[in-house]
Amino acid sequence: MLLEKVNLKEKYSKFTKHWSPRIIAEMNDYQFKLAKIKGEFVWHNHKYTDETFIVIEGKMTLKFRDSEVKLSQGEMYVVPKGVEHKPCAKNECKILVVEPRGVVNTGDAGGEFTIDKDLWI
Amino acid sequence: MLLEKVNLKEKYSKFTKHWSPRIIAEMNDYQFKLAKIKGEFVWHNHKYTDETFIVIEGKMTLKFRDSEVKLSQGEMYVVPKGVEHKPCAKNECKILVVEPRGVVNTGDAGGEFTIDKDLWI
Repeated sequence: MLLEKVNLKEKYSKFTKHWSPRIIAEMNDYQFKLAKIKGEFVWHNHKYTDETFIVIEGKMTLKFRDSEVKLSQGEMYVVPKGVEHKPCAKNECKILVVEPRGVVNTGDAGGEFTIDKDLWI
Repeated sequence: MLLEKVNLKEKYSKFTKHWSPRIIAEMNDYQFKLAKIKGEFVWHNHKYTDETFIVIEGKMTLKFRDSEVKLSQGEMYVVPKGVEHKPCAKNECKILVVEPRGVVNTGDAGGEFTIDKDLWI
């Protein structure tokens, strides 16, 4: 009956692709997603929801139109809905993203980075 | 305009009490809470919501009526709504809990462990 526990390190070993979030758990209608990021993502926003970033390993920068936030391991940030942002990482960074089911990674922007289906690991 | 980032270690340094979750961030109507736990909590369930446990440091056990799940640093578990559970930790364990705003830590059980107000740090 019980669900399996989730080990983040073990889950990270199962994929290598950058900017391709993998779902590891659901809580009500919210999802926990692991991602490996490197380089610059696209500017986008999520009109209807906040989005939570937690850095598991490495460093990343959340760029905003008028400022930026640098995050290291053990740090988190909630991007408010509607706020344009651009995640970046000079070197590979491992992050945990929490957001409602159905949120598309590129938000309003679309384009080649778009992952519009659930990829579970 | 922008929110402050949240550093988990820095937030943990701000309280010592066991079984007393502190809110560190909100995402839509969900909250992220840090807790330090040690010993045995009470049996309880949350009738209307799942509850997510992520171990940041140490080890804990989630006891269920018919089984248990042991969690170490970097592991997470989502307790489904309505499922009775009892968090335990032999030694102090630091956890991150994610759940909707307004969830009371002791669920249906009440009692001395109950924290029924928002404690932000």
